[in-house]
Amino acid sequence: MILSALLTSVGINLALCLLFFTLYSILRKQPGNINVYAPRLVAEGKAQQRGRFNLESLLPTASWVKKAWQPSEDELLSIVGFDAVVFMRIITFSLKVFSVAGVLGIFILLPINFVGTQLSEDSSDLSSKSLDSFSISNVNDGSNRLWIHFCAAYIVTGVVCYLLYYEYNYISSKRISYFYSSRPQPHQFTILVRGIPIPSGSTCSETVESFFRENHPSTYLSHSVVRRTSKLQGLISDAEKLYRRLAQLKLKNHTSQRFGRDGFLGIFGHKVDLLDHYEKKLEDVEHKVRLEQSSLPGKEVSAAFVSFKSQLGAAVALHIQQGINPTEWVTERAPEPHDVHWPFFSSSYLKRLIRTLLVFVACAALTILFLIPVVIVQSLTNLEQLETWFPFLEGILSLYVEILLHNLLNLILPKVKACHGFFFFLHKIMHFSNINDKGMCNMLVCRTVVSQVITGYLPSLILSTFLSFVPPIMIMFSSMQGYISHSQIEKSACIKVLWFTIWNIFFANVLSGTALYQVSVFLEPQKIPSVLAEAVPAQASFFIAYVVTSGWTSLSSELFRLIPLLCNFFKRVFSGKDDDEFEVPSISYHSIIPKVIFFGLLGTTYFFLSPLILPFLLVYYCMGYIIYRNQLLNVYAPKYETGGRFWPIVHDSTIFSLVLMHIIAIGIFGLKKLPLASSLIIPLPILTLLFHEYCQKRFLPIFKAYPNECLVKKDKEDLNDPTITEFCENLVTAYRDPALSMQYPGSTDGRNSPLLHSA
Amino acid sequence: MILSALLTSVGINLALCLLFFTLYSILRKQPGNINVYAPRLVAEGKAQQRGRFNLESLLPTASWVKKAWQPSEDELLSIVGFDAVVFMRIITFSLKVFSVAGVLGIFILLPINFVGTQLSEDSSDLSSKSLDSFSISNVNDGSNRLWIHFCAAYIVTGVVCYLLYYEYNYISSKRISYFYSSRPQPHQFTILVRGIPIPSGSTCSETVESFFRENHPSTYLSHSVVRRTSKLQGLISDAEKLYRRLAQLKLKNHTSQRFGRDGFLGIFGHKVDLLDHYEKKLEDVEHKVRLEQSSLPGKEVSAAFVSFKSQLGAAVALHIQQGINPTEWVTERAPEPHDVHWPFFSSSYLKRLIRTLLVFVACAALTILFLIPVVIVQSLTNLEQLETWFPFLEGILSLYVEILLHNLLNLILPKVKACHGFFFFLHKIMHFSNINDKGMCNMLVCRTVVSQVITGYLPSLILSTFLSFVPPIMIMFSSMQGYISHSQIEKSACIKVLWFTIWNIFFANVLSGTALYQVSVFLEPQKIPSVLAEAVPAQASFFIAYVVTSGWTSLSSELFRLIPLLCNFFKRVFSGKDDDEFEVPSISYHSIIPKVIFFGLLGTTYFFLSPLILPFLLVYYCMGYIIYRNQLLNVYAPKYETGGRFWPIVHDSTIFSLVLMHIIAIGIFGLKKLPLASSLIIPLPILTLLFHEYCQKRFLPIFKAYPNECLVKKDKEDLNDPTITEFCENLVTAYRDPALSMQYPGSTDGRNSPLLHSA
Repeated sequence: MILSALLTSVGINLALCLLFFTLYSILRKQPGNINVYAPRLVAEGKAQQRGRFNLESLLPTASWVKKAWQPSEDELLSIVGFDAVVFMRIITFSLKVFSVAGVLGIFILLPINFVGTQLSEDSSDLSSKSLDSFSISNVNDGSNRLWIHFCAAYIVTGVVCYLLYYEYNYISSKRISYFYSSRPQPHQFTILVRGIPIPSGSTCSETVESFFRENHPSTYLSHSVVRRTSKLQGLISDAEKLYRRLAQLKLKNHTSQRFGRDGFLGIFGHKVDLLDHYEKKLEDVEHKVRLEQSSLPGKEVSAAFVSFKSQLGAAVALHIQQGINPTEWVTERAPEPHDVHWPFFSSSYLKRLIRTLLVFVACAALTILFLIPVVIVQSLTNLEQLETWFPFLEGILSLYVEILLHNLLNLILPKVKACHGFFFFLHKIMHFSNINDKGMCNMLVCRTVVSQVITGYLPSLILSTFLSFVPPIMIMFSSMQGYISHSQIEKSACIKVLWFTIWNIFFANVLSGTALYQVSVFLEPQKIPSVLAEAVPAQASFFIAYVVTSGWTSLSSELFRLIPLLCNFFKRVFSGKDDDEFEVPSISYHSIIPKVIFFGLLGTTYFFLSPLILPFLLVYYCMGYIIYRNQLLNVYAPKYETGGRFWPIVHDSTIFSLVLMHIIAIGIFGLKKLPLASSLIIPLPILTLLFHEYCQKRFLPIFKAYPNECLVKKDKEDLNDPTITEFCENLVTAYRDPALSMQYPGSTDGRNSPLLHSA
Repeated sequence: MILSALLTSVGINLALCLLFFTLYSILRKQPGNINVYAPRLVAEGKAQQRGRFNLESLLPTASWVKKAWQPSEDELLSIVGFDAVVFMRIITFSLKVFSVAGVLGIFILLPINFVGTQLSEDSSDLSSKSLDSFSISNVNDGSNRLWIHFCAAYIVTGVVCYLLYYEYNYISSKRISYFYSSRPQPHQFTILVRGIPIPSGSTCSETVESFFRENHPSTYLSHSVVRRTSKLQGLISDAEKLYRRLAQLKLKNHTSQRFGRDGFLGIFGHKVDLLDHYEKKLEDVEHKVRLEQSSLPGKEVSAAFVSFKSQLGAAVALHIQQGINPTEWVTERAPEPHDVHWPFFSSSYLKRLIRTLLVFVACAALTILFLIPVVIVQSLTNLEQLETWFPFLEGILSLYVEILLHNLLNLILPKVKACHGFFFFLHKIMHFSNINDKGMCNMLVCRTVVSQVITGYLPSLILSTFLSFVPPIMIMFSSMQGYISHSQIEKSACIKVLWFTIWNIFFANVLSGTALYQVSVFLEPQKIPSVLAEAVPAQASFFIAYVVTSGWTSLSSELFRLIPLLCNFFKRVFSGKDDDEFEVPSISYHSIIPKVIFFGLLGTTYFFLSPLILPFLLVYYCMGYIIYRNQLLNVYAPKYETGGRFWPIVHDSTIFSLVLMHIIAIGIFGLKKLPLASSLIIPLPILTLLFHEYCQKRFLPIFKAYPNECLVKKDKEDLNDPTITEFCENLVTAYRDPALSMQYPGSTDGRNSPLLHSA
C-alpha cells in the first residue's frame, strides 16, 4: 500500500468521524432522542426534558466533550461503578503506553527507518512512496542503527511492565477499598452449592439444611434450592409478549385494527376480535403458569444457594472442601441475585465437563471456518494477484465494486465530480460491452481511486462486519458451558473473543499474507521467530488501515448508536408517542475490551517495526477515552458489578503482546543480519514472564477472593450496622428464582395480574 | 542381543539373587547381625536375642518369606504406618496390571510375533535367535494379526484405568479413615505462616500475636516464631561429635589411647591427655551455645508456626488468604514437628522463586551431563560398532574387561573350566604380545562369552552405578528449594528422580540407540510417533536386560543390606562390642518409588512391542512384594507420615506411561502399514487424558487437605477426648526449634549437660 492510499483511507474515516460527531451533537439535543442518547439519565430521572423545538439545538456543539471530560475518577466510580472505572483505566493505560512508544517511534525510529536504503525506492514523490519505506524493512541489513530499535524494545518493555505493575497495584487496592465502602450485599453472604448428594427418601432442601446445620452450626443462615424453571420461564415470556400486544392494541383503540386473523402470521385463519383473542390466550398461559408452579417440588435441581450470617462464614464454606467426595458439595461464589443466569442450571460435574469440551470443539471449528472470509479479505489487499489467479473475476469485480464504491466516493471526496459517477454507472449498466474512449479513460482514473479504496478500506470493513457476529456467538458458547451468572459468561466470552480476534485477525492475516500453509509453523517452534519476522512487517499497511477503519469507525458508531436511533425513530413515527417502557442498555465488555486490547497488541508488536501505526492508535485511544466516558455517563447502566475482574485479562494479554513482540524482534534482528542483537533480546521474554509470574502471585488472589483480614473487618462493621437484621431477613429470599416468586391473587384478568405488571 | 545372551544374563542374576537370599537367610539368624536385619524390632524391643551360637542357624531357611507374607493389610497399617501400606499397594497394583498384560502378552502376542516372517531369520537354533523375533518387528507389514495388538492396547488401557480408579478410590477412603482413627496430632492444629510484615518498632512475635488475635479471636491458641539457628545447630553437632569421642575414650579406658596429639588428624601437634583435651573443648563449645541462645531475639525469621484450638480453625487460616497482600501472611500446612527441616528457613517469596529457578537449571544441567555415561553405556551394547569407531579400544577393552569378567564367569558358569581363566589371565599379563595358538583359540571362545556378558550385563550395571548417585543429588536440590519439611523434600525429590530416570534411561537410551541428534524430534511434535516407533522396539533387548540386572539386583541388595552389614561387622570387630546406639533407618521412597514406577513404564510401553519383558517384570514385582514387606516389618521405621501423598505421583506417571504407549502404538501401526489401526488408536490417549482429568478432580483434593466434613467430625470427637487439654498445653511448645529448647542447669560438665545426653 502506498502513502496516498493510506491518506485516502484516513481522509474518508476522518470525514466519517466528523460527520458522526456533528450529527451526534445535533441529534442528542433533539428531545425525541433522549431515550437513545441518555437512557441512563432518563432512568435515573436526571435528564431534563427540553422544550419542543429550539433553533439552537440544530447547531453542532462540543459541550458533550467537556461534560464527559470533567468528572474525576472518584465521581465516575460513584456514578458508574467499579467495572466502568477499570474499563476506563484500560484505555488510559494504553494511552500512557503508546504516548511513550509514540514519542520513541515517531521521533527516533521513524526517521531512522526512512533514511535507510534497503528497499532503494527512487520515488521522489512522498505520496506515492510505499509505506514499507517507513518500516524497519527499509533499514540496511547489519546496520548499527538497528541497535536503536533494540534499545527501544527494552525501553518499551520496561515502561509497559512498570505501568502494568502500577495499574495492577492501583486497581487491586481500589478493589479492596471499594469492598470496604460497599453496603452489605447478598452475594457476599452467599455461596452456591452444586452436586448435592441427595439420599433416597429425602429432599434436596432437607439434605442441605442438615448438612450445613451440622457443619456450620454457628454461621449457617438459610438456603434456597434451585429449581429447573425453563418451561415456566418460557410460559412467562409468552405471557409478557401477549401482554405487550394487548397493551398496544388498547392504546391504538382503532376498531379496524382490533380485528385480525388468528392463523399463521396473522394472514390466514378466521377473522376474530384480537383483543378478546389475546385475553383468552393470556388466561390460558396464566393457567399453565399456575399449574407449573404448583407442581414444583418434583423439579429440584441438586444445587442450592446457601446464605450465612457473616461474610467470613460464607468464605469458610467457599474455600474449604465441604464433602469427602470433591465432586459433591462443590461450592462456588454466588453471583449477585439479579446476575444469576437461571435458565441454565446443570448440576452434574460430568455434564459440565462434556459441555466444556463441546464448546472447545465448537470454538475451534468457528475459528477454522472464519479463516475463509479472512483469506478472501486478505486477497483483496493484493487485488492484482487475485486477478491473475482468477481472470474471470476482473470483469465482475470491477463492475460491482466500482458501482458500490464509486457512489460512496462521490458523496465524500469532492475531487471526484459529483454526478460523474452516477452517469458512469448508468452508462456502464446500459452499454456494458460498448465502452467508448471517454468511458475507458474515466474507468482508468476510477480504477486507481477504487483500487486505493479497496486496498485501504474494504478489507477491514468486511472483516469488521464478520467480526461483529463473533461476540454474540461467543456469549452463546459461554452460556452453554454452564456458568451460573451473566458476568461469568461475559468474562468467559471476553476471553474467547480476545483469542479469536488475536488468532483470526492477527495470525491469520500475517500468515495468509505470505502463505497460509505456514500455519504449520506452530508445529516447529524453532522456526516461529523467523517466519513471524518475515510475515509480520509485510502486513503493517493492512493493520494501519485496520486501526483507522475498524477502530475509528467502531468508536464513532458507538457514539452515534445508529440502530437504537433508527429503532427509536420508527417507534416514534409508528406508535406516535415516546415509549415510556424502555430498557437502559448495559455496556457489552465482551466485545469492546477485546477490541481495545487487540489494538494494544497491534501497537506493541508494530511500534518498532512500523512506527507509523502509533499516531493512529493514539488518536483511537484519545477518541475512545472521551467517547466511552460519555457513553458510560449517559447511556449505559451497570448490569452487575464484578469488582474489576476484567483487569487480569488485560494484564495477561499485554504480557502476551510483549512476548510476541520479543519473538518477532528475535526473528527480525536475525533476518537483518545482527545476530548479537537477536541473542541479546532472548533475556527479555524470560524476564517478562518472570515479572508476569510475580504479578500473578502478588495481585491475582485479590481478584479471586477477599482476604480474611478484610472479611473480619467488614463483618465487624456490619455488626454495628443497624440495618443488618433487616438485611439478613431479606437475604433468606434474595436468591429465589424470579419465575417462582410471583404470586397470583386469584384474579384471572391478565391486565391486573402482578405477573404481567412486573413484565 | 540374541536369546542366549539374555539367558546368560538371567542365569547370572538368578544365581546372584539365590546367593543373596541364601546368605540373607543365614546371616539374619546370627545374633550379631540383628542390628542390621531387624533394627526396627530391636528399637521396639520385640527382637529376642538368641543364644551365642547354634548349628541350626547356619542352615538357609525360608521362614522369613512366610513371616513377611502373613500380616494382613490392617496389621501392616498398624505396624508400619499408612505410607508403607500405600507403597505396598503400588507394588500390588503393578502386579495386577502385569498379570493381565502378561497373560495377554505371553499367550497371545508372543506366539503371533514369533510366527511372523518379517525379519526372515533362518536360524533354526532357538538359543541363537535374536530377541527381535519375539517382538512386534517380526510381524509382517500390513498383516491383519496386528489388529490383535491393537485390541491388546485397548484392553490393557482399560484394565489399567479401571485399576487406577479402584486404587485411587481405595487409598483416598483409607486416608480419610486413617485420619479419623488417628489421635490428635500437633501438625493438624498448626499452620506455618511466612512473609510476616513486621512493622518497625515491633517484633515478629508481637505482630503474629496481634494479627491472629484480631482475625481469629475464637480459635487462635499460640505461636512460635522461627529463628535462624544454623550457627547454633553447627555448634550443637560439634558438641555431639565431641561427646561421642569422649564416650568412646572412656569406654576403652586404655591409657595408651588416652594420649594423642592435638593437631591435624591427631598426627601432629603436642602430646596431650585426650580426655582432658576433649572435655575442655566441649566446655568451650557449650559456652558458645549458651551465648548463641542468649542473643536470640535479634535473629527472628519472619515466619512462625501458629497453632489453633481446633483443626477447623487451622484449616480456615490455611485456606483463606490472610493478608491483603497475597505475598504476605502466606500460610502453609505445618509438617509434623519432627519432620520440620529447620536448617533451611528462608522467608521471602522472591528468594524462593529464584532458588526454584536455579534448581531447575541445575536439574537440566545434570540431565544433560548425565547423557554422557548413558551414551557410553549404550555404545557398549553395540560393541562391534564401538570398536570400529575407536580401534585402539579393542586391545584395552578386551584385556581389562576380560580380566574382570572372566573370573566372575569362572565362579558362576560351570561350563567354563574352573582354573582355565586364571591361567589364561596370568598368561596374558605375562606375554601380552606373544599369544600362542591355544591362547588365541581360548580367547575367541572367551570373547564370545564376554561379549554376551558385556551386552547383557555390563551396560545396566554401569547405568545403575551412575543412577545411584542421582537420588542424593536430587534430595540436595529439593532441600535447596526451600521446602520446610523432610517429607516435602522427599516427595519433590521423588518426582525429580522419576522424571530424570524416564528421561535419561528411557528416552536417552531409545534415542541414542538410533541417533542422538534425534532428541530434536521433541521440537517437531508431528514426527514423535514415527521416530519413537522406530527407536523404541530396537531397544527392547536392552530394557529386558535392564529389568533383570538392575531390577533383580537392586532387590537382592535391598534385602542383603551389604553396606550396613559391613559397617556393623567392622564396628563389632574393632570396638569389640555391639553398639547400643544405633539408628533405625527409614525407607528412602525417593529412590525406590521412581524405580518401581519406571519398571511399570517399561512394562506398559513394551508389553505389546516385546512381550518377553513381562515375565521378568512379574518376577521383579513378586520378589519386590516379599522383600519390601520383609524390610518394612523388620528394618525400616517410618520417619514421618504423609498420609499416602505419594500415590498421586504414581497415578500421574502411570497415565504418562499409557499415553506414551499410545503414541508409540500410533507410530508402530503407521510403520507396519496399517494406517487404519494407527488412526483408530488416536481416541485412546484422548480418553485416557479425560479419565485422568476426572480422577484429578475426583480424588486429588482429598490428598491435598481434609474436607470440612471430616474436620468438624474430628473436632467434635476431640472435644470429648479427656486428654485434649493436656494436648493443647503441649501444642504451645511443640514447634520450638530443638536447637533452642535445650536448657542448661548451670553445670559446665559436658557429660552431665542435658544437651549432650539428648545427643
